[in-house]
Amino acid sequence: MCVPGCREELERHFSRRGLLTRLAAAGAAGAVATMPGPAEAVPPRPKQIRVRRFVDLTHTLDPRFPTWDGHPGIELKKVASVETDGFNIFEWNLAEHSGTHIDAPFHISATGQTVELIPVEKLVVPLAVVDIAHKAESEPDYRLNIYDILEWERIHGRLRRGSCVAMYSGWGRHIGTPRYRNRDDKGVMRFPGFHAEAAEFLARERDAAGLAVDTLSLDHGSSKNFRVHKVWLGSGRWGLECVANLHDVPPRGATLVVGAPKVRGASGGPCRLIALV
Amino acid sequence: MCVPGCREELERHFSRRGLLTRLAAAGAAGAVATMPGPAEAVPPRPKQIRVRRFVDLTHTLDPRFPTWDGHPGIELKKVASVETDGFNIFEWNLAEHSGTHIDAPFHISATGQTVELIPVEKLVVPLAVVDIAHKAESEPDYRLNIYDILEWERIHGRLRRGSCVAMYSGWGRHIGTPRYRNRDDKGVMRFPGFHAEAAEFLARERDAAGLAVDTLSLDHGSSKNFRVHKVWLGSGRWGLECVANLHDVPPRGATLVVGAPKVRGASGGPCRLIALV
Repeated sequence: MCVPGCREELERHFSRRGLLTRLAAAGAAGAVATMPGPAEAVPPRPKQIRVRRFVDLTHTLDPRFPTWDGHPGIELKKVASVETDGFNIFEWNLAEHSGTHIDAPFHISATGQTVELIPVEKLVVPLAVVDIAHKAESEPDYRLNIYDILEWERIHGRLRRGSCVAMYSGWGRHIGTPRYRNRDDKGVMRFPGFHAEAAEFLARERDAAGLAVDTLSLDHGSSKNFRVHKVWLGSGRWGLECVANLHDVPPRGATLVVGAPKVRGASGGPCRLIALV
Repeated sequence: MCVPGCREELERHFSRRGLLTRLAAAGAAGAVATMPGPAEAVPPRPKQIRVRRFVDLTHTLDPRFPTWDGHPGIELKKVASVETDGFNIFEWNLAEHSGTHIDAPFHISATGQTVELIPVEKLVVPLAVVDIAHKAESEPDYRLNIYDILEWERIHGRLRRGSCVAMYSGWGRHIGTPRYRNRDDKGVMRFPGFHAEAAEFLARERDAAGLAVDTLSLDHGSSKNFRVHKVWLGSGRWGLECVANLHDVPPRGATLVVGAPKVRGASGGPCRLIALV
């Protein structure tokens, strides 16, 4: 059943889909090229951000934190110690997409923006949290779709331009157990993600700045074509993966500060995410 | 000449110094033990943060960014590429205290807090910028002292509890030249930093949350005893080094968000620093 306004919104959306589908036939690169990039002009910023508390949306990264390929995402080597050198210092060997981290457009495209080039104005944004936990509980392959977004808008109002739209699937509670990666008997991971059409909708119709998930990937775990990565990052936008504590922020009204690493040429990297609530 | 109120403030401060000095004679560890830690109770947060613009206080980190020991602070190794693997991914080999970065208390103390344990409430704080650029220009060994702080307070009002107090020395303009490390003919670095007494004052009398510098070290470059590190980090507080763009934030009124890495057991690490102005 369609929520009120849903039909009209979908008709508006899909009336443009014919063109998109034809272009998509030319391959992912073609489809990506049709997606509007984030607006060049920075949207007007709020004059005041109301803050009552801060919520840390970051998991602690250590060698046991789950990763896409199952290898440790970080290793620390002590190179100086207080006892002998006066200071404790480590070297880190870090797989770039480990822990709570950002995907920059360059992650999926040789010509995409590397992480240090994302302007700071795109890193402090309204945060919208779409709760699909109940659906993901019974269907690990669930993909957050346009209906979920429109249902959110029916309750909370239209998404603000330049928002980060976060999928709360409840998957964070599985960290520390095999259920987080949730590999089936064929080794295929089963966890929820965004639907590519929802990503297209959020870029095209809502000019969202970022996507965020509390799982290992913007795409659902069993995706074979990584279509959300291609559509979303390919449109020049960023994504956040392995986000923590989304249960502790309201569906609407928080401001997200994305403490992305500023490393030249990187395709992403571990972030500190702080929500001002 | 003393600024108005300076004499009274110094008398108040130094009346407690007799005890401090006696304890300091027992060595750095003893002195550190006398310093009050950051207040346990989180200070009342502002109900509203006014924001008109965002200022990125972070330098871009690459292998050429100046480091304490002169070795590259980061090296990226490409482990996957879009052309052959569908994704660009790097591994980073990172010296923990590289680029714009945070020093956690553990950097100087075996029992100090590691970076992931600093609570998020201590990472979003009022920012006060003390300009000593003119003094540092003529005296590279200049140390920001209590007089500089009291002069700042005379103009801008008393420091808010829980602030980050930043030294703006103008040193950032030397990045990319040997002048940033500024080694003399004996190999000793010459750049400004905080005076240890100013650090003690900010901990004891103002309960500041953090110190920040636009140089390589909280201590001045030719320090032999790293007294500011010992006093400040030893009191359970954090420091920021190699901070960018302090000329672009007001002396008072900005809010600093410290995007510190959340890596278990680390003594610090590269940060994304964003000022809400």
